[in-house]
Amino acid sequence: MKVAVVMGSISDIDIVKKTVKVLDDFQVGSEVRVISAHRTPFEAIEFAKNADKNGIEVIIAAAGKAAHLAGVLAGVSTLPVIGLPIKSSTMDGLDSLLSVVQMPKGVPVATVAINGAENAGILAVQMLSIKYDGLKEKLKEYKEQMAREVSEMDKEVVNKLK
Amino acid sequence: MKVAVVMGSISDIDIVKKTVKVLDDFQVGSEVRVISAHRTPFEAIEFAKNADKNGIEVIIAAAGKAAHLAGVLAGVSTLPVIGLPIKSSTMDGLDSLLSVVQMPKGVPVATVAINGAENAGILAVQMLSIKYDGLKEKLKEYKEQMAREVSEMDKEVVNKLK
Amino acid sequence: MKVAVVMGSISDIDIVKKTVKVLDDFQVGSEVRVISAHRTPFEAIEFAKNADKNGIEVIIAAAGKAAHLAGVLAGVSTLPVIGLPIKSSTMDGLDSLLSVVQMPKGVPVATVAINGAENAGILAVQMLSIKYDGLKEKLKEYKEQMAREVSEMDKEVVNKLK
Amino acid sequence: MKVAVVMGSISDIDIVKKTVKVLDDFQVGSEVRVISAHRTPFEAIEFAKNADKNGIEVIIAAAGKAAHLAGVLAGVSTLPVIGLPIKSSTMDGLDSLLSVVQMPKGVPVATVAINGAENAGILAVQMLSIKYDGLKEKLKEYKEQMAREVSEMDKEVVNKLK
Amino acid sequence: MKVAVVMGSISDIDIVKKTVKVLDDFQVGSEVRVISAHRTPFEAIEFAKNADKNGIEVIIAAAGKAAHLAGVLAGVSTLPVIGLPIKSSTMDGLDSLLSVVQMPKGVPVATVAINGAENAGILAVQMLSIKYDGLKEKLKEYKEQMAREVSEMDKEVVNKLK
Amino acid sequence: MKVAVVMGSISDIDIVKKTVKVLDDFQVGSEVRVISAHRTPFEAIEFAKNADKNGIEVIIAAAGKAAHLAGVLAGVSTLPVIGLPIKSSTMDGLDSLLSVVQMPKGVPVATVAINGAENAGILAVQMLSIKYDGLKEKLKEYKEQMAREVSEMDKEVVNKLK
Amino acid sequence: MKVAVVMGSISDIDIVKKTVKVLDDFQVGSEVRVISAHRTPFEAIEFAKNADKNGIEVIIAAAGKAAHLAGVLAGVSTLPVIGLPIKSSTMDGLDSLLSVVQMPKGVPVATVAINGAENAGILAVQMLSIKYDGLKEKLKEYKEQMAREVSEMDKEVVNKLK
Amino acid sequence: MKVAVVMGSISDIDIVKKTVKVLDDFQVGSEVRVISAHRTPFEAIEFAKNADKNGIEVIIAAAGKAAHLAGVLAGVSTLPVIGLPIKSSTMDGLDSLLSVVQMPKGVPVATVAINGAENAGILAVQMLSIKYDGLKEKLKEYKEQMAREVSEMDKEVVNKLK
Repeated sequence: MKVAVVMGSISDIDIVKKTVKVLDDFQVGSEVRVISAHRTPFEAIEFAKNADKNGIEVIIAAAGKAAHLAGVLAGVSTLPVIGLPIKSSTMDGLDSLLSVVQMPKGVPVATVAINGAENAGILAVQMLSIKYDGLKEKLKEYKEQMAREVSEMDKEVVNKLK
Repeated sequence: MKVAVVMGSISDIDIVKKTVKVLDDFQVGSEVRVISAHRTPFEAIEFAKNADKNGIEVIIAAAGKAAHLAGVLAGVSTLPVIGLPIKSSTMDGLDSLLSVVQMPKGVPVATVAINGAENAGILAVQMLSIKYDGLKEKLKEYKEQMAREVSEMDKEVVNKLK
Repeated sequence: MKVAVVMGSISDIDIVKKTVKVLDDFQVGSEVRVISAHRTPFEAIEFAKNADKNGIEVIIAAAGKAAHLAGVLAGVSTLPVIGLPIKSSTMDGLDSLLSVVQMPKGVPVATVAINGAENAGILAVQMLSIKYDGLKEKLKEYKEQMAREVSEMDKEVVNKLK
Repeated sequence: MKVAVVMGSISDIDIVKKTVKVLDDFQVGSEVRVISAHRTPFEAIEFAKNADKNGIEVIIAAAGKAAHLAGVLAGVSTLPVIGLPIKSSTMDGLDSLLSVVQMPKGVPVATVAINGAENAGILAVQMLSIKYDGLKEKLKEYKEQMAREVSEMDKEVVNKLK
Repeated sequence: MKVAVVMGSISDIDIVKKTVKVLDDFQVGSEVRVISAHRTPFEAIEFAKNADKNGIEVIIAAAGKAAHLAGVLAGVSTLPVIGLPIKSSTMDGLDSLLSVVQMPKGVPVATVAINGAENAGILAVQMLSIKYDGLKEKLKEYKEQMAREVSEMDKEVVNKLK
Repeated sequence: MKVAVVMGSISDIDIVKKTVKVLDDFQVGSEVRVISAHRTPFEAIEFAKNADKNGIEVIIAAAGKAAHLAGVLAGVSTLPVIGLPIKSSTMDGLDSLLSVVQMPKGVPVATVAINGAENAGILAVQMLSIKYDGLKEKLKEYKEQMAREVSEMDKEVVNKLK
Repeated sequence: MKVAVVMGSISDIDIVKKTVKVLDDFQVGSEVRVISAHRTPFEAIEFAKNADKNGIEVIIAAAGKAAHLAGVLAGVSTLPVIGLPIKSSTMDGLDSLLSVVQMPKGVPVATVAINGAENAGILAVQMLSIKYDGLKEKLKEYKEQMAREVSEMDKEVVNKLK
Repeated sequence: MKVAVVMGSISDIDIVKKTVKVLDDFQVGSEVRVISAHRTPFEAIEFAKNADKNGIEVIIAAAGKAAHLAGVLAGVSTLPVIGLPIKSSTMDGLDSLLSVVQMPKGVPVATVAINGAENAGILAVQMLSIKYDGLKEKLKEYKEQMAREVSEMDKEVVNKLK
């Protein structure tokens, strides 16, 4: 199992780390790359063209502003591409979100929330779980663990109010 | 191979039809449902709880306005959930988009463009292609067919300008 | 008299505290809960189903981003549900507001301002005052007290300008 | 049981009619008024001051653009005020929504969706049901009826796809 | 010559001070008030009704969020009302701006930029200059002074670049 | 008494007509011009420079999209300038509104609602009424007439509901 | 002199025609192409790589929604790229505008207004006029012609008001 | 080769410095000015009228809020004008962006991203490279250097993840 995690700029590394952490937690292999749709377009094309051959099964692309990375990779590869819009210093992430999600007919990008790094990882795991049954169990445990955490908070909230 | 296509209201049928058409074209089975997160919440929960058991591998959820359907299904099921935001009569689809895509940590929804019905279908096929190799070939053909159509337009555009 | 104050995440506690404070000031009982529409959907459904039986007369639901909590509870319960949209780290609260307020026909959520915690409490008291006459007097006193505070500021503003 | 339904302009009548229809269906009395916060401010103040005395238990205020009506009534009366933002010819209702919902601390307006006329009515009924037990049953029937309609659509959707 | 400067909340004092400073600079008298459309609606009405009689010639109203103050005063008085939208902690001032500027037919509010405190003052002076010729000269001097300041910056900018 | 009504493009004539109609109704003279900040910038400057000398007391400027007309005139003239943002075919008037209202410190534009043509006229009359007492009476009559119209609607609304 | 006019979809032809018309009017040669960043990415890259060699001096790229075409071409070519955002059926063109204009550091796109087809053409001519002196004269004539048209409208506007 | 870099206010100097730095790096001469469309409109007009004569080949105009500077200069000069929208303290730069980019037919402004100072410089160099062949080589080197930097980051990203 291998997921490519591509970021458009090294400045996005702190957000992308959380995606990689999720994949690690689910024991899903990852290949992390810095490739820019605008500054290294040939590498972007090359990467997408060979991703399938190189054993990659899902691509996660993180980018901000006029965020074309996910769309460009999805234009070349037939692998599912997850778009992670990064909030930049202006426009509160709306520019990134719209640039990633509003893809034209024929070339979808599976978009998660602005800066939703963990969710990009979980979505990749969910996609892989279609094929790899073992991940299904782990996803259920993850869901139950989340529920337990909320439930514990629920029990303790009365104390927090004091 | 089975994809569930759930819409929150029968009024979304004309958009959802395009999703089903894509699945048909790829010979992927579909189960089309009308389930509302707000008006039939128990059915929504029940549906999501049993989706995996019932052989569903991907869920597509189409809804408008405060569009909670995809999120609610994703809260229950560990299957990948594709969110299709429907443009309603006010707010130009921004409300639907934000309600679908801005999911909290732990529960992703794979969001496509507002009214991006075909893309919801293609994304489901891409997810399934991780497991079903035959779909990969079909996706490549689809991509090539798209490219050919654009190329043909490219050749004829000079005539269209006259 | 009992109002349920439900928050989608413990991180909203500092805002929700202000709601509880208002209810305390009006001597309206409250039951504070942490329940997530996405991470503990079964608890959410269960809670809403039994709220009326458990003596709850109004539900206040606070949540951010794709804020489905209020809508999900309103889908199950026939009690009036007050939605309190929480500003998250992106989109300046617009995502929360639209997710809470733009409910489809048949399932209203009584939405207050983004982060309008006190107003969620006061609105609950106003709803209860339909039944409990004593609250009407208290609401009038509250209004008069507010007016007095503004009037005092009005008198002192000249000094503040120096 | 009496609900006041106030509109800021007669041009909103077609939307407000749906609110009145809901109240009629629940056999809740209504008093329909045309009062403008800007063009008849004294009537607005007078109306709000006497609403309680005149047997009104909930106020619904419908207005568009810089929609101050609900806020002005809520500033005077301690009755719960439901704000119904009307979509005008520009800004797609965003101006109305923000003008109605973003009320300052101390003076809440229970806001429903843009043009959400039916929901304004149902919310009023839910508020009244705190006091009037008979309405609770009717609200449950309404909810069940909605669910049945969705379920029927769910059964027939396969035919509609053909 | 007297301009009323009304703010909806004492928390706006630091912005409003700049408006008063401009009026002082132009030797235009001002009466500064704290009056809330929502918390002291009767004072608001009363103030507006008597403003003309009390020698006030222009009203400046500063308020944030669902900013109804300017609109309410303009509904009662026939004096020109200048609306100064205040940026609040959410929505970046868009809610204030739309609530102030999008007034319905018949009741204008002369709106300046979000937090545009000085401009509210200058606009009041411009209005008064229709009647008071002396202000025209001062406005021209003010304009020339502004131009000189920009021109000086223009000369020095080369040094600033080093 | 003379008000200049300047539009940036002849295509705005149908909206501007309503402004002129209001001025006519109040028997305020008007000079209607087509001047573009972008296509006839010299005329714009010239017009503004001489407006005061030519007996103009208030300038109304109507423009759409990147609507610079009001701002450019206000940069040159010290007369009060009313900005009327025109809704264009994209962006629902938001571009026009922000371009007109968000003026920098020192150069205010008195902005009215998007397409608020009548209000631009009334605001001009209100400004003139500071000097011309006769207009005050007319403005009061106008206000009373508006109130009467609303009150009549109020009386007849019951019939309209049937 | 040759300008490439590239559109992402043949459906944009009616808008793009206006761009070509402007180039024709200025006797600037044009090569019109249909190339999609998403559906024919290899053609896009190839086109951009060879544009300079093929005698193209300016590239105009028209696209809607998540409009990546201009950005992708600008990532490959060092020619100036003009981005023409096309309004699509949702989001009123805001998605297109932000996707085109918000380019990251190092790769600019010269963006014109949403659907601003003529301006894309004129901007290309202005860029070429840096090199080709003859175009400067034509641009001046064009500007004067525009001014004359506005001036004529200015003279006739009085008649249009009747 | 000379590019004029004009800012509307000295407060924009820190952003504009980056534009000048880019021009310096490409050895393109620059003339930096502080000219305001609103506070020194005559200088603005004068500057634009003579820019061509004074040897300027491209104009870059930086301004915020209701940012008219670029549009005003483009209205007078036939040189290509690059608009650099500056983010101000409210509206997150959306007001600046729309004021700069949404120019009417006939008068384009080549708009770059909000605060996209470097890109304004690069775009100017690209325009000049149409005429000055030497710049083409430099632009290619710049592009290659950017690509190298991204590639190096790509190689080192694995270390950064630890």
